[in-house]
Amino acid sequence: MDNTLTLLAQVLADRKLQSADQSYVASLYAKGLDAILKKIGEEATETVIAAKNGDHGQIIYETADLWFHCLVLLAHQGLHPNDVLQELQRRFGLSGLDEKAQRAG
Amino acid sequence: MDNTLTLLAQVLADRKLQSADQSYVASLYAKGLDAILKKIGEEATETVIAAKNGDHGQIIYETADLWFHCLVLLAHQGLHPNDVLQELQRRFGLSGLDEKAQRAG
Amino acid sequence: MDNTLTLLAQVLADRKLQSADQSYVASLYAKGLDAILKKIGEEATETVIAAKNGDHGQIIYETADLWFHCLVLLAHQGLHPNDVLQELQRRFGLSGLDEKAQRAG
Amino acid sequence: MDNTLTLLAQVLADRKLQSADQSYVASLYAKGLDAILKKIGEEATETVIAAKNGDHGQIIYETADLWFHCLVLLAHQGLHPNDVLQELQRRFGLSGLDEKAQRAG
Repeated sequence: MDNTLTLLAQVLADRKLQSADQSYVASLYAKGLDAILKKIGEEATETVIAAKNGDHGQIIYETADLWFHCLVLLAHQGLHPNDVLQELQRRFGLSGLDEKAQRAG
Repeated sequence: MDNTLTLLAQVLADRKLQSADQSYVASLYAKGLDAILKKIGEEATETVIAAKNGDHGQIIYETADLWFHCLVLLAHQGLHPNDVLQELQRRFGLSGLDEKAQRAG
Repeated sequence: MDNTLTLLAQVLADRKLQSADQSYVASLYAKGLDAILKKIGEEATETVIAAKNGDHGQIIYETADLWFHCLVLLAHQGLHPNDVLQELQRRFGLSGLDEKAQRAG
Repeated sequence: MDNTLTLLAQVLADRKLQSADQSYVASLYAKGLDAILKKIGEEATETVIAAKNGDHGQIIYETADLWFHCLVLLAHQGLHPNDVLQELQRRFGLSGLDEKAQRAG
C-alpha cells in the first residue's frame, strides 16, 4: 500500500507520452493547467459535501479523486508526490520517527 | 518516504487524546467537522493559486497543507489513508502492478 | 440594471414548475442540493483562475456563473437575493446611505 | 434594495484611497490579489457548509460574505458589479423582460 503514490506517479508520467484521446489523464494534460486546477477545486468541494453527508464510502471516493488530481498537477509540473511527503515529514519531525521505526523493526 | 501517510495517521490518532489547547490538530478536532472542512476548501484554493503563480515551492507547501487536512478529516471520521490509497489502487489496477513489482524485486 | 437580481429570482422561481428536461435550472433542482453546491464550488474556483489569468472578460463571465448558482441555491431554499442584499446593507450601514441618496435625489 | 451593489461598489472604490490599517477592505487591497482570491475560495466553501447545515441564517450570511469578496475582486480589477449583472441579463434575455416590466409599470 505504502508505495501507491509512487506507482501512481509513474503511471501519470507515462501518460504524458500518450495523445489526448488515449486516456482521461492525457486529455487533462492536453487541456492544460487550468483544466487540472478546476478539477482540484471541484473535487475539494465534493469531499466537503461527502463529509457533510457522513457517508464514509463517498468520503473515501472523493478524497481519492482529490488526491488523484493533485498527483496530476504534480506530474504536470514535473514534481513528485515524495516532494509533498517530505514536506509533511519535515513539519511533523517524522523523518526521526521513521528512523526510529526502522531501528525498532 | 512511503510510510509517511501511515506515520502521520498515527500522529493524528494520538492527538485525539489531547485537549484542544495542546496542539493545532487537537484544536481542530475540538472545533469539529465544519472547521476541518473549511480548511480543506481553503487549502484547495491556495493550491490553485500557488499553481497559477508557477511557484514549485508554494505548490508543494500548499499541496502538503491540503493533504494534511484531508488526513485530519479521515482521522476525525475514523478512516485511514490506506482506505484512500486502496481506492486509488483499485481504479488504476495498481494492486497488480504492485505485485509484479514485488515479484520483479 | 438594479433590479436584475430580482428579475432573475423570478425566473428561477418560475423554473421550479418545469420538469427536469425543460431547462438547465430545472435539471439542477431535480438533481438536488448537492448538485447545486458542487456548481458553487466549481464556479468559485473558475473565478479564482480567471482572476489569476488577469482576463477581465473571463472574470465577469465566471463571477456571473458563481452569482447565478448562488441565486439557484437561494431559490432552492426558498430564499430571495434581497435577503443577502439586506445583510450587506446592514453590515455597511448602507440603509442609511440609501436613504440619504434618496433624500438627495 | 435594488441599488445595494452599486452603493457597495462606491464604498469599495472609496476604500482604495485608505491606508491598509484604516479598514478590512483596505488591508485586503494592500495584501493583493491572492489574498482576495483566498477569501473567495474560503467563503464559497463556507456557503456550501451552511447549505448542508440547512441553516437559512447561515446561508444568507455566508452568501453575503461570498458576494462581498467578489465585489472586492471586481473593485480591485477596476470592474463594476453592473458588468456582472449585464452578463446575467444577456444570458437570460432579461433586458427584454426589464423593458417589458417598465412598459407595464
